[in-house]
Amino acid sequence: MAQTFYIPPDRLRDAARQLCLASGSPEAEAGLLAERLVKANLAGHDSHGIIRLAMYMQWMRDGIFQPGQTPRIVTDNGATCLISGNRGYGQVAAEFAMGVAIDRARQHGIAGVGVTDLSHIGRLADYAITAARASMVGMIFTATGGKSVLVAPAGGRTRRMSTNPMAVGLPSDRDFPIVFDMATSAYAEGKFRVMQDGGFSSPEGLLIDPQGKPTTDPEDFFNGGAILPAGGRNGYKGYLLNFMVEVLAGLLTGGGYLGKVEDPLFNNCTMMIVIDVTRFRELAVFKEELEDLIGYMKDSPAQQGDEVLYPGELEARRETERLRTGIPLAGKTVENLQAELDRHGVGIQLAALAQAAPAATAS
Amino acid sequence: MAQTFYIPPDRLRDAARQLCLASGSPEAEAGLLAERLVKANLAGHDSHGIIRLAMYMQWMRDGIFQPGQTPRIVTDNGATCLISGNRGYGQVAAEFAMGVAIDRARQHGIAGVGVTDLSHIGRLADYAITAARASMVGMIFTATGGKSVLVAPAGGRTRRMSTNPMAVGLPSDRDFPIVFDMATSAYAEGKFRVMQDGGFSSPEGLLIDPQGKPTTDPEDFFNGGAILPAGGRNGYKGYLLNFMVEVLAGLLTGGGYLGKVEDPLFNNCTMMIVIDVTRFRELAVFKEELEDLIGYMKDSPAQQGDEVLYPGELEARRETERLRTGIPLAGKTVENLQAELDRHGVGIQLAALAQAAPAATAS
Repeated sequence: MAQTFYIPPDRLRDAARQLCLASGSPEAEAGLLAERLVKANLAGHDSHGIIRLAMYMQWMRDGIFQPGQTPRIVTDNGATCLISGNRGYGQVAAEFAMGVAIDRARQHGIAGVGVTDLSHIGRLADYAITAARASMVGMIFTATGGKSVLVAPAGGRTRRMSTNPMAVGLPSDRDFPIVFDMATSAYAEGKFRVMQDGGFSSPEGLLIDPQGKPTTDPEDFFNGGAILPAGGRNGYKGYLLNFMVEVLAGLLTGGGYLGKVEDPLFNNCTMMIVIDVTRFRELAVFKEELEDLIGYMKDSPAQQGDEVLYPGELEARRETERLRTGIPLAGKTVENLQAELDRHGVGIQLAALAQAAPAATAS
Repeated sequence: MAQTFYIPPDRLRDAARQLCLASGSPEAEAGLLAERLVKANLAGHDSHGIIRLAMYMQWMRDGIFQPGQTPRIVTDNGATCLISGNRGYGQVAAEFAMGVAIDRARQHGIAGVGVTDLSHIGRLADYAITAARASMVGMIFTATGGKSVLVAPAGGRTRRMSTNPMAVGLPSDRDFPIVFDMATSAYAEGKFRVMQDGGFSSPEGLLIDPQGKPTTDPEDFFNGGAILPAGGRNGYKGYLLNFMVEVLAGLLTGGGYLGKVEDPLFNNCTMMIVIDVTRFRELAVFKEELEDLIGYMKDSPAQQGDEVLYPGELEARRETERLRTGIPLAGKTVENLQAELDRHGVGIQLAALAQAAPAATAS
């Protein structure tokens, strides 16, 4: 087993911030990127965490996006807006867009904000949480401008769709947010990369090989197979949801859609729908009833060895744990990030920041 | 095998209309009900078709709702409204609510309209289609006011949730709409009733018995088992979607939610989100790109014996077929409906309306 480094979150955040600054980001952008990437690791979603930063550095060298861009409102119709990320960091554009959406939902009760011309936006949950913290219901739908074709439609045997995720955040007074963030494919692509790197098989019913036959070997997927839609072999509902996300985030924003890619660059075009809870219910009553609903769900007798969780509970647990243990990073991830730190003259040695591996962890 | 009657749609519609009139509905309500129920049969969703009319008659006798009610806007904030169905036919209230939502989306670009205090609303697709025909993207989320507890949460082994469906309709110039309508449970309840009546087993991975063990016997479900969320045994995404629908349609409308039922009556509380396409894209371009996306999906090489369909394609085919063959109704359904016709003094003999059974059908 390869070495794992446990890096304290604040040290990792500082390293990410310094790398962003050194690669051309202004202070606010560097801070946002560092916070969001490390937050993804804390929540246990390592595929959307600090591992992405070396990729972003490469993307900038490839001209896919530029640091320090200012998003702008392209069309403004009050309750609906279309925003351009000006080919900057997706996180900056999407956070700006969510700010506009919250502002407009406060004015009108509901808002629909599209954002396009941006790069990877990271974890959708982040924007849903921003909405929830502003006492809004936030819904986020994200496509890829017709690129990242990885998923077979229900009944099909070749790649035709992206993983097209969606996220929903709900206001609460909890320390950790009530939020979910899910691909409309059976699994997100990153999970198969983890299996591939670790030499594991996939659970059944998630993948097909290049001939369209069921497989549990992640190599079959990377060699031209496909991920099935959410629901697996019976994934027509996942296919329908994926189609919905493509239309909301790709067609409606004009960001590009599957089958017709005019823009050669990756484009995490996104639709955000934000609802001001107070137009319908008193906020305190809504939060109280939401807690009541969660209690009722969690009170359900569980399957043996399993448990009923509320949306976001697993992430809350992982964050609690990782704040203690530090963030586990594979040697390869540390190596790639170190190379970028060195390349940009940031005098941080990641391996030296590692704390001792935890003696025993809960999960 | 029990007898099947093939009733011409227009004759069945007329019988439904006359029964509604005789049971106290004004002309417009009777026409809407007849049209919608028969439309569900035409689309092949018999569980939401004419079979419901005898149930509605019983519900009226039980005082669950009244005919001839006028929905009213309870709170009006422009882009968001809350509507009461005044305990009338759900179809009347929901169609009124969708009309308001379309009107407000035209004014503001996006609208969120909640509706509660209503009975069963039938197929959600109907309202999504109304939105689509008005050149809007229509999204419908429906709960049950905390009743109809049928579905186990992911990791749980007892019923805690409703089937909480959602539907999305998209504008097009096709004769048949681009629309989907799906339970966030593995299957809708009605499908298991069909299996039970026919003595069939369920596909694997959809049901658990009263002890929480996997089963394929629909009797186990009706004897206190549960439906799994969409995705079946790996149904945490279905659970999350179900939770989302409960919050949007139950909590946010104030219509009641799982675990706390204050109102003893069935209440198909609903949230509708409607987006005016033209605030984002030229309508003709949107429709053209949607056709392009559909073409790209359908062009996917298919699994053997299977096919890639666009949302609504299956329903379009069934309707084309049933317009020719007539609507197949089980003897029991005809008997129950006939009893209501007789009770209300409507001089129609359903069995006498039947056309010859089709010699051979496509599906």
